[in-house]
Order: sequence, then C-alpha cells, then structure tokens
Amino acid sequence: MKNNKRPLILVTNDDGVSAPGIRALIDVAKKIGDVCVVAPDSPQSGMGHAITVNNTIYCDKVDLSDPAVQVYSSSGTPVDCVKLAMNKILDRKPDLCISGINHGSNSSINVIYSGTMSAAVEAGTQGIPAIGFSLLDYSLEANFEPSKRYVEQLCRQALANGIPKNVVLNVNIPNLPAEEIKGTKVCRQANAQWKESFDKRTNPHGRDYYWLTGEFVNLDSGEDTDEWALENGYVSVVPVQFDLTAYTALEQIAEWELP
Amino acid sequence: MKNNKRPLILVTNDDGVSAPGIRALIDVAKKIGDVCVVAPDSPQSGMGHAITVNNTIYCDKVDLSDPAVQVYSSSGTPVDCVKLAMNKILDRKPDLCISGINHGSNSSINVIYSGTMSAAVEAGTQGIPAIGFSLLDYSLEANFEPSKRYVEQLCRQALANGIPKNVVLNVNIPNLPAEEIKGTKVCRQANAQWKESFDKRTNPHGRDYYWLTGEFVNLDSGEDTDEWALENGYVSVVPVQFDLTAYTALEQIAEWELP
Repeated sequence: MKNNKRPLILVTNDDGVSAPGIRALIDVAKKIGDVCVVAPDSPQSGMGHAITVNNTIYCDKVDLSDPAVQVYSSSGTPVDCVKLAMNKILDRKPDLCISGINHGSNSSINVIYSGTMSAAVEAGTQGIPAIGFSLLDYSLEANFEPSKRYVEQLCRQALANGIPKNVVLNVNIPNLPAEEIKGTKVCRQANAQWKESFDKRTNPHGRDYYWLTGEFVNLDSGEDTDEWALENGYVSVVPVQFDLTAYTALEQIAEWELP
Repeated sequence: MKNNKRPLILVTNDDGVSAPGIRALIDVAKKIGDVCVVAPDSPQSGMGHAITVNNTIYCDKVDLSDPAVQVYSSSGTPVDCVKLAMNKILDRKPDLCISGINHGSNSSINVIYSGTMSAAVEAGTQGIPAIGFSLLDYSLEANFEPSKRYVEQLCRQALANGIPKNVVLNVNIPNLPAEEIKGTKVCRQANAQWKESFDKRTNPHGRDYYWLTGEFVNLDSGEDTDEWALENGYVSVVPVQFDLTAYTALEQIAEWELP
C-alpha cells in the first residue's frame, strides 16, 4: 500500500468476496483512493458481530485481475476480516472502512444481526470512520448502479468531515430506479422486531429439524425513522453507536434493592 | 409448562447446555419459578448476534434428570435458541430470560461480541425482561457459588420491578470469594477496545493460517464504568439498549452535503 496522499479505503462485506454488491463498492472506492479488500470467502449473512475464537482462520491474496486493488479472501467472519486487515495486511491505518453493499436491508433492528454492519462497527471500535451500505434487494441480480452516487458522496463527505467519535453509519438504499430515489434522510433506527415462524421438517433419518423464517414487523410510525425514509423513497442514514449503555435507565435500576 | 402463578424463566447461554455456568443459573431459577432451558449443544463463544439463516437447526429435548426443569439442546446459536423457545417450545411468554453464567467477562466492548448478551438482547427485542450474567473466570472449574446470591436478587428485582422497555441488563461478576465481593454497582459501559495480535502458523500442507488472539485495552478512567466496578470488587450492572441510534450525532451528519 503506497503511503501517498490518496486516502486508503478498506472494503469488506458479509455476502462474500465474490458477491456483486462488493464490486459496486470497489468501483466507487477506486475513484476516491487506494483500495484494499478483505472479505469472507463465503456468504456470512446473519453473522452479527461473530468472531472466530475456537477455529483457525485462513486469509489468502486473490487475483481480481485489477492491479489497482488488493484483494484478500478469508475463511473468517466479517469482523475477523476487519481485524485481519488492521493487524496483518495493511501497513497503515485506513482513512475509511466501507462494508457492503449488502444484498438486502439492514435497517432498524436488522442492524444487530448484520455482518455488514458489524464489520463497520468493528472498524469504528478501532477508530476508523466506517459506513455499512445495504440495498433493499436480496437478489444476486440486484442492480447496484443507482446506489453508487450515494455511496460515493457519503464516502467523500465522511473523508472530508470525519464521522463523530465512536459512531459509524448504517446506510440503506431503496430498491428503486435512480430517478425515483428522492434523496437522503439522516434518521433514527425504527423500533421494529422479527416475528419468527420456524419451518419444521424431518430429515431422511427421522430426526426433526427447523428452518428459521420470520416476518419483519415495524412497530414505529415515526417519520424520522429509517423505515419511513425507505418506504418513502429516500436513502436512510442512521448514525450507530457501540456504547450500548441505556443512560436513561441507569437511575431506575440504581434504585433496585441489591446486595 | 403449567400456567400457574410461578413466573416462567427461560434460561440460555453461549457456552453450551452442558457448561457449569448454566447449571448455576438453573439452580437459582428453580427457586424462583418454572424453568425451561434452551441452549446450544456446543460452545458458541464470540458468536455475537449471529443467527442461522442458511442452515438447518436441530433442537431436541434432553434429560437432565431433574423433573422440575425442561431442557432443550439446539445446534443453533444463542439467538436461535431464544427464537426457538419463543416460537416452538414455550406455550406462554416467559416472565424473564436469563443467559449465562458466561465463563469469562462480557464487560464494556465485549458486549458486542458476546453470545450470552446477544441471547438476552434477542429476548429484549421480543419484550421479555432479560439479563445476561458473566463471571470473570474463563476456567471450566470456575466457582459459580459466590455469584448465586447476586443472580437471585437481580432476578427477583427484575420480576418485581420490571426492566425499562427496550433495555436488558449486562451483569458481570468479579472472580472473588463471596466475602470479598463489595456489592453491586449500576454503571455505564467502559470505553475499551481489543488490540488484536494474530498468531500466524503454517498447516501440514504448507498453507498459512491464523489464530485470533488479542489484548483488552481499557481507554476509560471513569469511576462510573463497569471496568472500574469490577476492578474494585463490585458486581457491575449495565443497562443495555438495542436502539443503536447515536442521537447526538444526528444533527452533525444532517449537515453533510448529500444528494
């Protein structure tokens, strides 16, 4: 990695190094700076902030036939990838870490299950400005072209302005043609939850097993939320913190009768 | 599950259904209410809020030779276990979900990597009062006896007072003899991070691989933090929220020049 004036951008994701979404991020990042990609070698959706503590981690340089971009593929989780990049691959601290573009939404409560966002959060804990991007289209054939304009400007603004300390950005992009996206809204995480519905089946050996399925339920009618923005054609930008302390609850719990 | 007046307590963990720590929680929970255990069939440390989306999940009733407790063992993650309990196992909503006792600390930034805490957070998202417990001793021979008094009173207080909406508790217990634990402190999450140091090795086939290791660095000198409490002999109780919005950053990001 040359130590010149171009910003160094670390790119990762949770859909795997060969997913189309990460290609869109790389395309944008190359216009802005030097690019290093460290991403999982297979899909890691729903991995949350998992790390590999009881197993080995492989990490190999792979050829992407693009000399301007270094690409590494790892058997680890998205969070492992960020840790490997920081500790073993990069020779200087990146100026920005971008994760995604995820195939599917990471809005509202999905932020806590998301490998895409956990990679960004991990970078944030290490003092690197970081943004996770997701497109509301699960398909492998999703069209990432309309997203690029928003990705580029958010990266440029993050590099120009910085991101507040201990904060990373969760960006979700509606699945709309470019001309139908109305703009960007900075918003709060909607209060929502998943209502699970496990699909029970029996394997050929007679043992029951389950598939996790579920329905997303938005409990929040606020017009300042990410869900509202996305439903109304806006790109949502939620600043996310990893100090999880519920400060407003401190006093109430302190009144409990405890030994 | 009888629908009587005894509270229903869901017990889970991330160290696996056979770990000693969960036995301590079960012992305490049995004194307070009806108990159902749904826990991973193998250790799941560091799984964060991972869920199993691309694989099957097994979940079988297991005999723990204790007729007062129903025990299920699942191939899923801690979060999967809570979802399975809510959706497939319990016939009513639990009054409390407790997770742990984890073998090792989940204080400060560890909360985001912790399967123990993610199980509690998952219960919280489903409107169940929830507490994650961890003892600062990684050993399988850890002594959980001194923890029980604190576990019991926290459970009783949570059932009596409720826990504020959208908040769960992260409880860490110092590894000290009972008489040296000074009491309980309600506190905020310390600002801390992990400095990684990957151990690089070569496998018998000549391919390099890594083990993730790291050093915990407390960046926070505040005496109102969980790290301070634990270092000074107190049980730390941090109220944790899963609305991750960094409200104080909303205004600053809203000033960015965005399409």
